[in-house]
Amino acid sequence: MKIARFLDSTDTERLGVPLPGDRARLLDGDLFAGLEPGTEEVDISRLLPPVHPPNIFGIGLNYRQHAAEGGRPVPEKPLIFMKATTSVIAAGQPIVLPASAPQEVDFEAELAVVIGRTARRVSEDDAPEHILGYTCVNDVTARDCQKRLDGQWTRAKGFDTFCPLGPWLVTADSFDPADVPVESLVNGELMQGGSTRDLVFDCPTLVSYLSHQFTLLPGTVICTGTPAGVGFARTPPVFLRPGDLVTVKVGGIGELTNSVSAG
Amino acid sequence: MKIARFLDSTDTERLGVPLPGDRARLLDGDLFAGLEPGTEEVDISRLLPPVHPPNIFGIGLNYRQHAAEGGRPVPEKPLIFMKATTSVIAAGQPIVLPASAPQEVDFEAELAVVIGRTARRVSEDDAPEHILGYTCVNDVTARDCQKRLDGQWTRAKGFDTFCPLGPWLVTADSFDPADVPVESLVNGELMQGGSTRDLVFDCPTLVSYLSHQFTLLPGTVICTGTPAGVGFARTPPVFLRPGDLVTVKVGGIGELTNSVSAG
Repeated sequence: MKIARFLDSTDTERLGVPLPGDRARLLDGDLFAGLEPGTEEVDISRLLPPVHPPNIFGIGLNYRQHAAEGGRPVPEKPLIFMKATTSVIAAGQPIVLPASAPQEVDFEAELAVVIGRTARRVSEDDAPEHILGYTCVNDVTARDCQKRLDGQWTRAKGFDTFCPLGPWLVTADSFDPADVPVESLVNGELMQGGSTRDLVFDCPTLVSYLSHQFTLLPGTVICTGTPAGVGFARTPPVFLRPGDLVTVKVGGIGELTNSVSAG
Repeated sequence: MKIARFLDSTDTERLGVPLPGDRARLLDGDLFAGLEPGTEEVDISRLLPPVHPPNIFGIGLNYRQHAAEGGRPVPEKPLIFMKATTSVIAAGQPIVLPASAPQEVDFEAELAVVIGRTARRVSEDDAPEHILGYTCVNDVTARDCQKRLDGQWTRAKGFDTFCPLGPWLVTADSFDPADVPVESLVNGELMQGGSTRDLVFDCPTLVSYLSHQFTLLPGTVICTGTPAGVGFARTPPVFLRPGDLVTVKVGGIGELTNSVSAG
């Protein structure tokens, strides 16, 4: 089932199953405690990010060809970083080029895992039952901060608006993350085209591994890594400019599109 | 004014002004919207962390002598990292040595800034009015993860229990962060003894700088950096072991003491 979080025509926050024509069939209840299908249909006035994450973990260099395009070895264990929770925006909201680092802002199309039940030291076999669902994420990254200006990736990946998330969740019971296409397009031109079958560490492995380091609370988002084709590694490089439109597509989920604006 | 968050004898969450003998005079209202002093006094059954931070930012190498003891240059701009929000514990709760990295867990005594009003692109002059108050933080760090095992500091600094915070807030109207002693003790022995007058980037500078990269929401915690004397730089090195007691003392705030236990 797809679950969208959105504002209706009265600016009330709602959960619902998205329907064609920016409509949704309302769901009653709580995203984590359980939802009941309703019958009422309403207009989606504006999509919201599917969750408010208590923490956002990202995984670096988790596709071999992406590691190679950056001249980096594939990590022996998941390379973990965090994105500030304040960086999350919904589909349709603008990515704002930060005034302090506007020149080398890059896109990273990724499958995101959303935790549903608190996960602490869970095995790979038990990991799936802690996953609420999946969505698309654009792990937007300021390459100058990441590669030259800062010692840590916190600023590069954590600027406001650097975590477009959505457009909605697909629940784990109706999605197999083992082999789905992950793509990005800039102004309609394909930039990245990979598949989760090429993940170095797959979703159950990541949930299990992370849960041995951190307690994963409901709503925690794991950005599973990006395939080859990002902007900095292209010839010539492609960085985001005001007016661009960036789309992340994950097969079976949908399209996450954001415009780009100056800071 | 000091503000403690705690459980009373009925396990109800309360805010109050801490008094001698594990007592508190209750405060009514909301920590961020405004508090009214009450008259009722109750027992503090258990301290809670002073806030639930939406993000925790840390600042690396922000005391010259600490940068020097690690053989690192002083950063030209604040070196920012994040700690997982799930790493926060209160005074009196145990720091748990993680099963995956138990051998080189180190202490870092720091002054913590707590944001009170949303800060976005604020000047250094305007920064203080966005600060609710100050508390003590122990920026616990697994040195093996930080220095050898991982590319980023996320795991090293983000394990569960790696952010003891407290014992309470001191509001900004009654605390001048410009020159206060910052100390750590392990089993009563002084390890670090510095002063915030030696901060490379002081509190208003940090709030202003961070607010130009990230929106700082109410409750956001900034760990301002640690003075020299941490365990890994000592001869011989001092790492935390089960049964140890670690105290962070910041002048004018109080003492944050936590035991250490095996994972």
